[in-house]
Amino acid sequence: MMVTVNENYLLLKSSYIFSEINRRVEEFQTRNPDADIIRMGIGDVTRPLPGAVVEAFHRAVDEMAGEETFRGYGPEQGYPFLREAIAENDYASRGVDVTPDEIFISDGAKCDTGNIQEIFGLDNVVAVTDPVYPVYVESNVMAGRTGPMDESGRYEGLVYLPCTEENDFIPPLPEEKVDLIYLCYPNNPTGTALTHKQLAEWVDYARDAGGIILFDAAYEAYIQEDNIPHSIYEIEGAREVAVEFRSFSKNAGFTGTRCAFTVVPEELEVPDSEGKMHALKDLWNRRQTTKFNGVSYPVQRAAEAVYTPEGQREIRESIDYYMENAKIIRESLEKAGLRYYGGVNAPYIWIRTPEGMDSWQFFDRLLNDAEVVGTPGVGFGPSGEGYFRLTAFNSLKNTVRAMERLSELSF
Amino acid sequence: MMVTVNENYLLLKSSYIFSEINRRVEEFQTRNPDADIIRMGIGDVTRPLPGAVVEAFHRAVDEMAGEETFRGYGPEQGYPFLREAIAENDYASRGVDVTPDEIFISDGAKCDTGNIQEIFGLDNVVAVTDPVYPVYVESNVMAGRTGPMDESGRYEGLVYLPCTEENDFIPPLPEEKVDLIYLCYPNNPTGTALTHKQLAEWVDYARDAGGIILFDAAYEAYIQEDNIPHSIYEIEGAREVAVEFRSFSKNAGFTGTRCAFTVVPEELEVPDSEGKMHALKDLWNRRQTTKFNGVSYPVQRAAEAVYTPEGQREIRESIDYYMENAKIIRESLEKAGLRYYGGVNAPYIWIRTPEGMDSWQFFDRLLNDAEVVGTPGVGFGPSGEGYFRLTAFNSLKNTVRAMERLSELSF
Repeated sequence: MMVTVNENYLLLKSSYIFSEINRRVEEFQTRNPDADIIRMGIGDVTRPLPGAVVEAFHRAVDEMAGEETFRGYGPEQGYPFLREAIAENDYASRGVDVTPDEIFISDGAKCDTGNIQEIFGLDNVVAVTDPVYPVYVESNVMAGRTGPMDESGRYEGLVYLPCTEENDFIPPLPEEKVDLIYLCYPNNPTGTALTHKQLAEWVDYARDAGGIILFDAAYEAYIQEDNIPHSIYEIEGAREVAVEFRSFSKNAGFTGTRCAFTVVPEELEVPDSEGKMHALKDLWNRRQTTKFNGVSYPVQRAAEAVYTPEGQREIRESIDYYMENAKIIRESLEKAGLRYYGGVNAPYIWIRTPEGMDSWQFFDRLLNDAEVVGTPGVGFGPSGEGYFRLTAFNSLKNTVRAMERLSELSF
Repeated sequence: MMVTVNENYLLLKSSYIFSEINRRVEEFQTRNPDADIIRMGIGDVTRPLPGAVVEAFHRAVDEMAGEETFRGYGPEQGYPFLREAIAENDYASRGVDVTPDEIFISDGAKCDTGNIQEIFGLDNVVAVTDPVYPVYVESNVMAGRTGPMDESGRYEGLVYLPCTEENDFIPPLPEEKVDLIYLCYPNNPTGTALTHKQLAEWVDYARDAGGIILFDAAYEAYIQEDNIPHSIYEIEGAREVAVEFRSFSKNAGFTGTRCAFTVVPEELEVPDSEGKMHALKDLWNRRQTTKFNGVSYPVQRAAEAVYTPEGQREIRESIDYYMENAKIIRESLEKAGLRYYGGVNAPYIWIRTPEGMDSWQFFDRLLNDAEVVGTPGVGFGPSGEGYFRLTAFNSLKNTVRAMERLSELSF
């Protein structure tokens, strides 16, 4: 015997979609050195940190410079000041009951949604919407909950819930029994949302089936319509079956600053194989205290400032800015005669590629003829084939320019 | 079937040592409200961030406030400016060849040493020194590489390498075949170090046995003696068998700021079960790009400033300060007639508890009679029984006061 690799990693497709996009863009740029490429692919914010956040960030850095105010190791779960601000502003203010000690501060929703599967048994059946944020799928592949990928792009043993035009992007309840269900709403990549009623059906399903919903609400701040829940805990009974992931990345521009949080309610209990119940919160706490050492103190102070009146005003401004871009994109697509979805409660617009054109062909067409980069839908799963994602995260100016170019193409 | 927990978590002992310490200290403080407790238990720095680091931190926060200079998602592996500074200053300057793309920036050595086991197969046999930093053990328990803990405090299936007075704290080569070997030198908790020659024996062993050394060098900056390697890559052949973990926590005071890095050399290849070789670097890269999203940009700029001449001067000052504390502790223990180890190339002093007194009895004695808190050695593993850890991370004033109190006790 000799040391061996985790062979589950070998099941992963070797090229992550964004690498392939970069490859094609670089190749195009090399062939066309003067090309003025506008990137509307990656879901990354572009507006600077809010002033209130920057001020708090500076103040905390100064604390780290003083003998009396310096902070070493903080609580792995995050500082009470931030957990309390979240409980108050993100939950209590909406009439939702989440206590500070149910909130775990982390350095990213990507990390948390990737790590959460660790605390569940390997035999659990995992369901994902299709298309889907690849981290949910790949973290389960790495852990060994799937077989290899088949020719259709589906990993064996994983349950895919197709979300397409045909079902208005509403994930169908699974026909087989599933244990863990990843839901991301407002959705990445489709930009669509679930109403209270639609999400309540999922909560009821999880309660009946003994499953857990892993609810990624990273885009919550983009919700504009009243009938869309901001938190899964607005749904009755969700505290017993749902974990919620939130992030400061997309509301306050923290993609490069790194802060997020995960809510694991007290009531959420999961059995072991002998039927004995365990509080999931204790397992997550054990995971985080053993393999994580908390978020940078100045970053936590910066995140706290998101909840000041000034911070709230500033992030609202940024979101309005991005959503104005989304509106411009929607209107341009309308004029161009392209079918699209999303862009109302989310910064993503999901385009149906024109007849006879697949996701990558549409990508190449846009790159070559409009010098605009988006994301081929098939990169998010087999049911993303025939779709294409644009994001509203560019500057207004670039968004307008990109849409002008797009409107000159004929499909 | 129903959703189930990861039952490996249920094998973990429920109380982490530092929780038990806190419990006893709080109880003591409640009973003795006027007690002036001096904490020399947790390995946390106390001196503020260096001025050069604070300046760079502020500058980067300002960048995040500007439209033109704002940074969103960075490379998951870390920014080239930091990876290059590390390659140059921590390695090239010592004649060690490590390239920037072998360096992965992270938010903590705790995270990296906890996560690294993920990329290896579950069948690998893991060896740890005993006593040991608990994260190495517990992350492998959680993954399922062990059975339950026996009455002696050892997890079934894990190979323990006792490091005690009897063998001068030099870990013996395993008698059975092992695949993954965690070594931490300078050592936490014993404060001892391995010479070039001693470490070279381990590298040779790993090369012969087809094993991998996971080398935690978080305390490298405390090395004072010439014959102690700062990096395992100073040893010939180590690039083919060793991963190295480093941190800014203990040299530059980043315990609350969070930045560290892991080196996975290009040549380090690990087979799958069919004997096909895989570059470990690619697996770690896949792990990090899938489940991690990079370190906060301002924190990376702060870490970069550690390598400026001013930053280097300042961290040297802090380390000298802590090592002066270590010297005072050593001299006081000498006078008190207590046997001790470490404190020369590490900020930890490992005390042999007096005849007839175990780790927790010594803890209680020190707490009750000197109001000084340290860490019972048994908390780091069964071979830590009969030992006790003090750290040099307090202020000079408190260290002197604590040692005065200790010298009044008779053992």
